[in-house]
Amino acid sequence: MAEVSNKQVILRDYVSGTPKESDMVITTSTIRLSVQQGSKALLVKNLYLSCDPFMHLTMKETGRLTHDIFCSPGSPISGYGVSKVVDSDHPEFKKDDLVWGLTTWEEYSLIRDPKSHALIKIHHTDVPLSYYTGILGMAGKAAYAGFFEVCTPKKGEYVYVSAASGAVGQLVGQFAKLAGCYVVGSAGSKEKVDLLKNKLGFDEAFNYKEEHDLNAALKRYFPEGIDVYFEHVGGEMLDAVLQNMRVHGRIAGCGMIAEYDRAEPRGARNLTQIILRRLHFIGFTHRDYDHIYPDFLEFVLPYIRQGKIVYVEDITQGLENGPAALAGLFKGRNFGKQVVAVTSL
Amino acid sequence: MAEVSNKQVILRDYVSGTPKESDMVITTSTIRLSVQQGSKALLVKNLYLSCDPFMHLTMKETGRLTHDIFCSPGSPISGYGVSKVVDSDHPEFKKDDLVWGLTTWEEYSLIRDPKSHALIKIHHTDVPLSYYTGILGMAGKAAYAGFFEVCTPKKGEYVYVSAASGAVGQLVGQFAKLAGCYVVGSAGSKEKVDLLKNKLGFDEAFNYKEEHDLNAALKRYFPEGIDVYFEHVGGEMLDAVLQNMRVHGRIAGCGMIAEYDRAEPRGARNLTQIILRRLHFIGFTHRDYDHIYPDFLEFVLPYIRQGKIVYVEDITQGLENGPAALAGLFKGRNFGKQVVAVTSL
Repeated sequence: MAEVSNKQVILRDYVSGTPKESDMVITTSTIRLSVQQGSKALLVKNLYLSCDPFMHLTMKETGRLTHDIFCSPGSPISGYGVSKVVDSDHPEFKKDDLVWGLTTWEEYSLIRDPKSHALIKIHHTDVPLSYYTGILGMAGKAAYAGFFEVCTPKKGEYVYVSAASGAVGQLVGQFAKLAGCYVVGSAGSKEKVDLLKNKLGFDEAFNYKEEHDLNAALKRYFPEGIDVYFEHVGGEMLDAVLQNMRVHGRIAGCGMIAEYDRAEPRGARNLTQIILRRLHFIGFTHRDYDHIYPDFLEFVLPYIRQGKIVYVEDITQGLENGPAALAGLFKGRNFGKQVVAVTSL
Repeated sequence: MAEVSNKQVILRDYVSGTPKESDMVITTSTIRLSVQQGSKALLVKNLYLSCDPFMHLTMKETGRLTHDIFCSPGSPISGYGVSKVVDSDHPEFKKDDLVWGLTTWEEYSLIRDPKSHALIKIHHTDVPLSYYTGILGMAGKAAYAGFFEVCTPKKGEYVYVSAASGAVGQLVGQFAKLAGCYVVGSAGSKEKVDLLKNKLGFDEAFNYKEEHDLNAALKRYFPEGIDVYFEHVGGEMLDAVLQNMRVHGRIAGCGMIAEYDRAEPRGARNLTQIILRRLHFIGFTHRDYDHIYPDFLEFVLPYIRQGKIVYVEDITQGLENGPAALAGLFKGRNFGKQVVAVTSL
């Protein structure tokens, strides 16, 4: 079997501060497009790669301590993606299967243990394949589990979503409307705020960068207080939210992007509010909800097909543009879910 | 009906910083020992008054914002207590009934609305009456609801209790042992640590004041990590705990005494651990669990009668010594549940 060239995005060194384009380097190696018999491995061609905030943690020197997956300097970075099986020695996968799950940032990846990579076969291809990096992948599962299972929303409740135009946030907002809630989102530009209000059906939205007093902003948008907060941010935003939660409110901890690049963590000051207001602050990961993925697909696919749930993607073409796309995510440059199409069209 | 003299503990002014003896003043007024017909009020003689950390919050200028009960300068301070009905115009209470619930720090209190004071009739008097300020009152209900309902402990789990010799902590530790858990407590003196280990059945205990690195201390006592943390403290202790929680651990937020007297809240820095370790951090109040009080009594009374649960009280004799007892609570001077017996024996 001939070897082919394999373009890769290599982590140059552990990142400190926010990941930058220069933390990664494009190289080309070669790879044999077959797997050894008895290895139970897969060889996949990567089609779409997902840019996610948690990847920052996996690129730090402490990544090994905090994540099952982590990146090592000199190796391709890891993340979620959509791939096509080129060769398989695993009984559950065969050539030409489409899958989503953990992969590495390169054209072709050898996956030694498909189970630890949480690979899931894709059966529905009447929707865009890239959706399996987002609405039909980790982000969708996180939004669905986090909102319906963790936040246990009730009709008429007040829901606040930070990073609301992001991969997860835009779905939480739409799920909240389906559940009969009042939902306000925040994002970091006028264009994103317009998107939330005009395309994604949020009742209200605001640009957090234009608010010098987040506490006052939340009081304006939630005069009755907040029942459910979908947390992506941490830091000052969490402190402002804690001052505006209603008694028995729920906070679903999905991410804390504002904390990831601090040298020293800041955390939140107003934690006594958790006790005074009897809040539930619940950290979760989509991985704890793998079992509900079939139910989730059954729930969400009809809405997608009927156009009742929309999903905004920001697709960067070409693996060589991946580092800029990933670095841009941490600057809020993406408009919707940030995806990298490995092969430019 | 003649008036009698009524000794009172008056709040001099809103407290700033830790409550001090000088924030309160003893005065004597007079009171008529009867209630008006049609008023639905009660006139009670207070027997035991409970000293509780939350009272700090009710004595601040912001108490009105955070608590249903609060203290006003010039009036007697409020808190839980055990009282005897002297006169009643309320259909559910009659003369000589024993009750526990919210009252005011004075010999006799006029209670205009027994329901808003959460008054509960005492039926079991074969146990010390003072227990209704602690193990059979708010503290017991908080420990029972917080441990069994909020923390959902499983046999063999690792439980950590801060302020472990206090009104609630000593019970949580004993409940944890009954549930088959491994339990470690911390307290602020050698005597308290000895109490935890030798009388209250904790597996281990340590003096947090002797640990310059709380994170290291917890790693020593919990090499496998902590499943359940019963939070009374906040601040640095919470930060150390967050670094030692096991995945899917539960934190019951019962109080944050370390936060109450800071001019600016400190909070906790390591909140990303809530997400990374998928923790449940749940604030609660015993008031949300009023409905389980009958079940709780049925559970705990046999253990008390059989001596299988013990309860350590620190009873100060005489209302005039109440201010020192309450101020001492915030310095950790109490040894067990701090109570004030209104009439010195």
